[in-house]
Parts: sequence; structure tokens; C-alpha cells
Amino acid sequence: MNTYCSPNLYVALAHYPVINKRGDVIASAVTNLDIHDIARAVRTYGAAGFYIVTPLEDQTELVKTLISHWTEGAGAVYNSKRREALETVAIRETLEAVSQDIAGKHHGVYPRTVVTSARNNPGVISTRSFREMLKRGPPCLLVFGTAWGLSQDCMDAADYILSPLQGNTAYNHLSVRSAASIILDRLLGDRE
Amino acid sequence: MNTYCSPNLYVALAHYPVINKRGDVIASAVTNLDIHDIARAVRTYGAAGFYIVTPLEDQTELVKTLISHWTEGAGAVYNSKRREALETVAIRETLEAVSQDIAGKHHGVYPRTVVTSARNNPGVISTRSFREMLKRGPPCLLVFGTAWGLSQDCMDAADYILSPLQGNTAYNHLSVRSAASIILDRLLGDRE
Repeated sequence: MNTYCSPNLYVALAHYPVINKRGDVIASAVTNLDIHDIARAVRTYGAAGFYIVTPLEDQTELVKTLISHWTEGAGAVYNSKRREALETVAIRETLEAVSQDIAGKHHGVYPRTVVTSARNNPGVISTRSFREMLKRGPPCLLVFGTAWGLSQDCMDAADYILSPLQGNTAYNHLSVRSAASIILDRLLGDRE
Repeated sequence: MNTYCSPNLYVALAHYPVINKRGDVIASAVTNLDIHDIARAVRTYGAAGFYIVTPLEDQTELVKTLISHWTEGAGAVYNSKRREALETVAIRETLEAVSQDIAGKHHGVYPRTVVTSARNNPGVISTRSFREMLKRGPPCLLVFGTAWGLSQDCMDAADYILSPLQGNTAYNHLSVRSAASIILDRLLGDRE
């Protein structure tokens, strides 16, 4: 994993623990385009790295195959821009393992975890506050959930919950690919 | 197609005329997740409508099947949020036909066309200027290209070229799904 110009913001896409439509905690399947799209946004906005979190062995193998195709295989020759994006990606079994990995890169300092949700939650922080926190320098881990979102236990264990994105309608059902891209733009993009 | 709260901004995703990796003008294939993701962003940010542009009959049939599955078929029952998003979608053979359709909804006033590109072009307008233009009220059509982007002729024929998104790295290879989501957030989202 290379380091780019926002050395303290890491992004994780969690496939566990997330909930399904009925609210049961599950491990979801990996979606190829989630990895591509979010890696490309992470690379464009210069976040420090992108973790795919899945405890499932077959899914881990799938992600490794995808990444090696674009970073070392035929894909790297066909489209070097995909290689540059996918070089930001690492895979871990749990969010705890991600935090440990980040602490290893920051002199033992564990990241502050900031989880995202499309629902309203009490005590959320705004993107603006998060942007200011990033400027102060501690490592931060921004966590997105797949399927119907992160489990309640996962939300409760986080240091912060980010204010949900809201357009100008009552509808806010963005894909995780869109939400991650917009939040990276709000956190790291230039404010015109 | 329903009308939401930004009644003068329309989005088009063009599969023709676009270029391939070698720069040849082609008609690209439709990607399901492009339609889902951009429709969900259009619905969240309250743009007036979303046009899929393809001159290919088989691709038109494919898009119609996808849309009817989620708006009338089993998908509408399974996930009503997808229905609400895909109700914003219409299909046309050409960008000219899209402009005619919009003129028909705006007392014969044709939309100003604003094309997007990841490349730097002379005389671009900023997102901020576009945002102000939208407030003044004329219908506007924001056009995204698939594949390697819109053809030069298509860019030359547009009224405006939008300034490319730039993160804080030299890399700006976002997916069209990410770019459309970020630009809608910049144009129509609340500025915190």
C-alpha cells in the first residue's frame, strides 16, 4: 500500500458486521465495482489507504485475484490507471485488524473510527468537523457498510458517527460507491 | 418521469458519441450499475430527470427490461427505493432527442448543454458558476460520457464544458458513477 497526500485518512469497506434487509447481522458478498470505484476515489482524493474487510476466506481469495489481475496481471498492462487505484487496497478479516494495521504505521497510535450511516443517529459529527479533525493530524478510519449498513454494535463501538448525506429530497438511498465518493470529495476536495 | 425539486437540471448518460481507448468514436454498452447509481443520486439530489442515451436497439431493450423489473416487476415489490430511483429514468436515441424532450416540458425552451470531461479543456465553467446558472432558471442538461469520454464533436457542440473534478493528487480517474454523484452533490447538495 502506498501513501499519498492525506496521510491520516483511511477508508474501510465492511462486509461484516453488516445487516440484511430484515436486520440480521450477516457477512455480505464482495461487489467488484465497489472495490474499483472506491479505490479510484481514494486514489483521486489522496486518502492514505483503502481496506476491504471480510472474514470469509473465499471472498478474500476473490478480492486478492481481482487486485492481482489489475496490479500485476494482464489488467496492469491494459489499464495502468486501475493499477494505481488498486495499489491502495489491502484486505483484513476484521475492523480491529484494520485499526491494528493503521496503528503500526502511526507509531502505535490507533485510529479514531468514524462510521457512516444513511439513517439519522443522535450525536453525529458533521463533515466539516471531521475535516477539521483530519487537519489536526490523528489517524482516522472512515468505515462504510455494505448491504443494509453496519450493525448497531459496530456503530456503538465507533468513536464517531458521521452525519448522513442528505440531498434536497426526503430520499437518501445512495449506493455505497456514490456515498463514499461524495464524502471523500467533501472531506478532501477543494472547496471552490 | 416525475418532477422533483430541482425542476431545471436534467442528467444524461451518453453511450454515443463516446470514444474508446484508441480515440475512435463508438457506441458503448450499457452498465447496469451506472443506471442504478446515477438514478439513485438523481433522486436523492432532486434533479428533474435522468436520460440514458443509446442508439442501439438491443441496448435500449436491455435498459427497458431493467427499468420495468424495478418499477413494475418483482423488483418494485422487493425494494421500493429502487423503484423510486428508476422512475426518474427515460431512454432516448440521441442527445438531440433528449433536448427536444426537455424543450417539450419547458414551453419550447431548449436546455443549455453542459458536458463533463476528466480532461482539462479551455474555457470551462466552474461548478459554482453552473450552480448559479441553475438558480436563474433555464433548463440545463448535464451530460456524462461512458467509455473513455464524450467525442470531441460532442464536446464542441455543447454550450458549456464543466471544469473537471480534481482531488488533491495528479490522478483523476473516477468512475462515471462517482463523478456524477460528486457533481450532483456539488450542484444541488447543501453547502455546510
